[in-house]
Amino acid sequence: MRFYGYFRSSSAYRCRIAFNLKGIRPETEFVNLRDGVQRLESFRRMNPQGLVPALDTGEGVLTQSLAIVEWLDETHPAPPLLPPDAIARAHVRAFAQIIACEIHPLHNLRVLNHIKQAYGQDQDGADAWCRRWIGEGLAACEAIAAARTHAGAFTFGDTPGLADICLIPQMFAADRFGLDLQPFGRLREIRAACDALPAFAEAHPAKQPDAV
Amino acid sequence: MRFYGYFRSSSAYRCRIAFNLKGIRPETEFVNLRDGVQRLESFRRMNPQGLVPALDTGEGVLTQSLAIVEWLDETHPAPPLLPPDAIARAHVRAFAQIIACEIHPLHNLRVLNHIKQAYGQDQDGADAWCRRWIGEGLAACEAIAAARTHAGAFTFGDTPGLADICLIPQMFAADRFGLDLQPFGRLREIRAACDALPAFAEAHPAKQPDAV
Repeated sequence: MRFYGYFRSSSAYRCRIAFNLKGIRPETEFVNLRDGVQRLESFRRMNPQGLVPALDTGEGVLTQSLAIVEWLDETHPAPPLLPPDAIARAHVRAFAQIIACEIHPLHNLRVLNHIKQAYGQDQDGADAWCRRWIGEGLAACEAIAAARTHAGAFTFGDTPGLADICLIPQMFAADRFGLDLQPFGRLREIRAACDALPAFAEAHPAKQPDAV
Repeated sequence: MRFYGYFRSSSAYRCRIAFNLKGIRPETEFVNLRDGVQRLESFRRMNPQGLVPALDTGEGVLTQSLAIVEWLDETHPAPPLLPPDAIARAHVRAFAQIIACEIHPLHNLRVLNHIKQAYGQDQDGADAWCRRWIGEGLAACEAIAAARTHAGAFTFGDTPGLADICLIPQMFAADRFGLDLQPFGRLREIRAACDALPAFAEAHPAKQPDAV
């Protein structure tokens, strides 16, 4: 199994946490997105979409972090990243999707480049754009997490799962763009619980060999 | 089971197709997003997030279209919306996520309102923004779909599934924003196959009682 990632990509970060929670160490290749390595012919031979993260399982090249994490959970069931009950699974997936479908897409690199080029925004303007969408999305996450009065240490219970796998990289991005996380008390508690686990700590962007 | 939707919401449209494919007719409530009904206290008592689509299953209120569709597929397995093999499931989910995580979030209403208000874009400018991201994303979808040389009539085989459920509403949005779909030959073939099925035809926004 060979994993293609980039230290600062939120979606690669999600996959790294999932691999660590499962105790799997794929071979890893670092793809420098800032230099455009993902667009090179050599990379596109492996993944025509030119995207990270990508996972070459040996049977096929998988893309999209949530699809990769669900594949990992189906093929390596212990420890589970989703609860067994269908309704509970839907709540966890919905929380993950608030992040993956409503927050993260708005602050990825191509979008920030576009609002700079097409709308004349400088870095401060781009950061303000990011803070707006991350703040709105994390407020929804906080409301959901805080409403779980019988919650364990993690978003949905006593063990970390798909929701936490998405939340922690999103909070890292929030810090990067200067969002004040003070209002998100429950999310900060969850982050403290995750930070204490090597699976999360070792997946942190700053710990990756390609970090600059 | 009670479903809260809006005729033109892509994500509500996805859920409608899924219900129809499963032969399920939930009670439906129409939430006028343009009038802000989703933000009213009366709606938020049911769904504190103030979002459509939402599905009150009787056991809980589910949100996020992909989570709703996967819940539906787990609880009402026939006909299946995902293939049984883990790698094949990952490919279908990844295709759905290109749409749900990379295209659709960039053209939803709150984002368009923001680029108008903060960056002084008029409707033409907002439409151009939409065409850019939809065009880029559908090009990735076309490449994946066209590369499947042993494909059936639908994106991933002879029966419609999660990929088609996401694709058809995205192509409807592409038309709305004036994107030329001529370059997407394989996607247009898939759309023709879907259009021929009542499950898709009856889910079309124009067929909904709240259509204006």
